[in-house]
Amino acid sequence: MSQSRIPELGGIMAAEMAEQPAVLQRILDEGAPRIREIAAEIAARNPRFVLLTARGTSDNAALYAKYLIEVLLGKPAGLTSMSTTTAYGAKPDLSDVLVITVSQSGGSPDLVASTKAAREAGAITLAVTNNAGSPLAEVSEFHIDVLAGPEKALPATKTYTAELLALYLLVEGLRGGDGAAAKVLPELAAGVLARQAEVKALAERYRFAQRLVITSRGYGYPTAREAALKLMETTYIPASPFSGADLLHGPLAMVDNVSPVIAIVPDGKGGEALQPVLDRLRGRGADLVVVGQQDQVDAASGGFALPAGVPEEVQPILEILPLQQLAYEVTIARGQDPDAPRALAKVTRTH
Amino acid sequence: MSQSRIPELGGIMAAEMAEQPAVLQRILDEGAPRIREIAAEIAARNPRFVLLTARGTSDNAALYAKYLIEVLLGKPAGLTSMSTTTAYGAKPDLSDVLVITVSQSGGSPDLVASTKAAREAGAITLAVTNNAGSPLAEVSEFHIDVLAGPEKALPATKTYTAELLALYLLVEGLRGGDGAAAKVLPELAAGVLARQAEVKALAERYRFAQRLVITSRGYGYPTAREAALKLMETTYIPASPFSGADLLHGPLAMVDNVSPVIAIVPDGKGGEALQPVLDRLRGRGADLVVVGQQDQVDAASGGFALPAGVPEEVQPILEILPLQQLAYEVTIARGQDPDAPRALAKVTRTH
Repeated sequence: MSQSRIPELGGIMAAEMAEQPAVLQRILDEGAPRIREIAAEIAARNPRFVLLTARGTSDNAALYAKYLIEVLLGKPAGLTSMSTTTAYGAKPDLSDVLVITVSQSGGSPDLVASTKAAREAGAITLAVTNNAGSPLAEVSEFHIDVLAGPEKALPATKTYTAELLALYLLVEGLRGGDGAAAKVLPELAAGVLARQAEVKALAERYRFAQRLVITSRGYGYPTAREAALKLMETTYIPASPFSGADLLHGPLAMVDNVSPVIAIVPDGKGGEALQPVLDRLRGRGADLVVVGQQDQVDAASGGFALPAGVPEEVQPILEILPLQQLAYEVTIARGQDPDAPRALAKVTRTH
Repeated sequence: MSQSRIPELGGIMAAEMAEQPAVLQRILDEGAPRIREIAAEIAARNPRFVLLTARGTSDNAALYAKYLIEVLLGKPAGLTSMSTTTAYGAKPDLSDVLVITVSQSGGSPDLVASTKAAREAGAITLAVTNNAGSPLAEVSEFHIDVLAGPEKALPATKTYTAELLALYLLVEGLRGGDGAAAKVLPELAAGVLARQAEVKALAERYRFAQRLVITSRGYGYPTAREAALKLMETTYIPASPFSGADLLHGPLAMVDNVSPVIAIVPDGKGGEALQPVLDRLRGRGADLVVVGQQDQVDAASGGFALPAGVPEEVQPILEILPLQQLAYEVTIARGQDPDAPRALAKVTRTH
């Protein structure tokens, strides 16, 4: 699109969402060999623990990586509370710890400072960013470029799925796997994105929503968090993400027969663990929309059916796509511009 | 109150909130020696890493402990994603890891299962509960009783502050400190709780609120999360908690000149790090109510002033008190019963 024309509302976000199959393919073709090399170098140093550091959308990608690391690698992992380093000057001993910092821009000063401090404290540091020339990439021992190309819309979409795939390939590399489960993703992602009309129909029910609850479990929980963030920053509807188990420990009281609930139901153990929560939600008369397999959608008030037969650990890369489109469509329906939510800047500089 | 009379609305929660100074004093007098012994035994085994496992209110207490462990102990720490063990059967190597499980009841099957699995995987396991005879206490190598007495209201109040104090004394013990900063807490807590009329006046502005944003940084962030949970489960108002830095990475777009925001401003480094966030919120015209020092309250639309001169790491034990009362007062104003939110059971059995 030429710079001299005023783009249509949300044109940039729409274009970037549409690029995702190509970005995923680029990571598999051009990024994977280097990710494998880095993984082999790190695996040779056998870190005992993994800490993940990120903000916003990238923090949800980091949470996905935490599940992969615990389940597939069998290593304890945690998300850092960055202020303990940047505000309180904590100096933990990080020898034998792998610190992974995830950031689209690689530019936020707190991420740079905490990664630098981690490296000085003995950690193996790895940056996962969309900017190989960023300060974060520079202060880290290792750097993975997620190869998503410039992202101009304020709501991150293609960099999120790119981060997920890069992190999946990293963890596969760390355990000596081949990442074969990811090969089908570009084609399946294209198929999901082609069904935008279904999402547009679904968006109608949230045109006047005052609140949303979004829930999942296991590998789907990062998707619930990212969907909530995307909806909040574009539509301005307060969207509360809960793991299904945490929802039962209190917030369930918020849900009644006029409460819209979106559940991401993984096809696998996460989905099985979520079933009692779905039953409780139905029992409370909640309007339940499901992103998951066809039978789960059929048992709900509505939803979006995902392709069958995809290994659970890579499903999040597909699950988020209709939810990005949902945020976009609800925002358009409300007459707002998804490309440029009020009050936000693309590179958030927090300290 | 006699069992034969119908208690006034919220009478049980009110009574339990009022018990908090006595519970804090009991922990200092009767609990502290045993906590010190346990801490010494654990310190002698020098764990490298700490993992914390909990749900709901106790998860917010665990997050507080994570800050203490990182800042005061200088050890890396993480909150576990329980489903990786209970749903996916992850078997991480936990030798030289301290696993702390925090639970009011000590009865939820997933907590028991994940703690058992952690012990089998070589972890030092410590349960922090309000029930010494609970299954969780039984499967853990060490157990700290928070001595809060039976809690009957569904919203946890006295067990939260009891867990915070017990965890503070534990971390102090682990680093060979004396926990002297806590000595003033019972008296100061009584002073804060005596000012319920101020909170009642503040509650009027949230009578018709459709949403709330609650923010803080550093040691105050667990308070923001716990305040949001308490408000959601009693008033049913969706309350979104954000660390100040994360708020700027997206959700700030939700905030406008009719958005109520509550900020917990720690007196110390967390509060300093929050200042740019408060400035941005004021710039967006948000209605900002502050729980913090008097000068911070004066610079906001309203608030509740906390006592001065309390070390930052124990301020969370006081910060939550007016916010518990706020949840109570808004719920009463809305004609609902704080003691028994709809849809909830006291012991939540998640798997």
